[in-house]
Amino acid sequence: MTLERLSKQINFVLEIDQLKQVFRQTILLTGNNRAENDAEHSWHLAMAALLLSEHSNDKNLDLFKVIKMVLIHDLVEIDAGDTFCYDTEAVKEQTKNERKAAERIFGLLPSDQSKQFWVLWEEFNAMITPEARFAAALDRIQPLLHNIHTKGGAWKRHGVTKAQVVKRNGPIANGSKLLWEYAKGLIDDAVHKGYLTDDSS
Amino acid sequence: MTLERLSKQINFVLEIDQLKQVFRQTILLTGNNRAENDAEHSWHLAMAALLLSEHSNDKNLDLFKVIKMVLIHDLVEIDAGDTFCYDTEAVKEQTKNERKAAERIFGLLPSDQSKQFWVLWEEFNAMITPEARFAAALDRIQPLLHNIHTKGGAWKRHGVTKAQVVKRNGPIANGSKLLWEYAKGLIDDAVHKGYLTDDSS
Repeated sequence: MTLERLSKQINFVLEIDQLKQVFRQTILLTGNNRAENDAEHSWHLAMAALLLSEHSNDKNLDLFKVIKMVLIHDLVEIDAGDTFCYDTEAVKEQTKNERKAAERIFGLLPSDQSKQFWVLWEEFNAMITPEARFAAALDRIQPLLHNIHTKGGAWKRHGVTKAQVVKRNGPIANGSKLLWEYAKGLIDDAVHKGYLTDDSS
Repeated sequence: MTLERLSKQINFVLEIDQLKQVFRQTILLTGNNRAENDAEHSWHLAMAALLLSEHSNDKNLDLFKVIKMVLIHDLVEIDAGDTFCYDTEAVKEQTKNERKAAERIFGLLPSDQSKQFWVLWEEFNAMITPEARFAAALDRIQPLLHNIHTKGGAWKRHGVTKAQVVKRNGPIANGSKLLWEYAKGLIDDAVHKGYLTDDSS
């Protein structure tokens, strides 16, 4: 019985290696302009959670839960692929595709762990609890930092505007008012430096 | 004051992006035989911790601490680079180089967080506490799984033998007797399949 359970868990460890091959629009800060993959992104968010949790609006944040959420939040992209957040057509299909992916991928786990992953992933997506709001803030500020420090990176490539960036990143405030104040300063600076088109004037 | 502290934290988030460019000997399970990098590896260990913690020898394991350890354990390799565990000459220099790296990298953080990272990293390296032993087990079984599922991968490339693999991976038993039993079965199977040279006969 334990061996059957262990086999499922080990197969899951092997399965999720594929997340290292799911590439995002974000460009790495050093090296040859390579795109970031989901495994790297998930690690980076977990590190950002460790470093920045004191800035959460909620002073009783369950940091461990935030970290579990960000570690698993993109697993569904093994099947569903990465959806660029400024691609409005693709975003329409995203929920359906990711749900189907969650059914297959989380379904590989022993049932108690499958349920645990579902609960975490749905809580993350709903962006209601303090932990989900803070995780969502991290999932926005990390690509924002990358776009700014790659001189517009994915924004420039796709002609993203300030209004789009403000709309996408506004939910940072629901996780951390301080991080949103900081992010707004970065966005203004990005416009000033020509990394982002200002369509608001 | 908060802004100075936040700036240090954000600069650290940017600094550690470099871990995505530190490549290991481990080969990914899918794709074009690409080497794994440290950010991917750290994420994978955190996921393995979430999935396998019930198999720890210690039934009161602090899983959150294990996850923090594996998330940060390779940050020093931004400066010190990855040391192949079967390269005995390089391993001799490893401790000195990694300590110097920790001084610079952890030194970028606000002092309380710098101390937190030092304490976690030193606990991980000492492999004495249940959390450090379990983290060390994960840090061994993940590359072992990759070597087996890439038909010998890094082992074949470097002519690594069964005796070396048994010596390197023996500490898995200190974290999880069950995982070590499982690993020994995999090692025997790897010899049987010709992925590993048997030098013990």
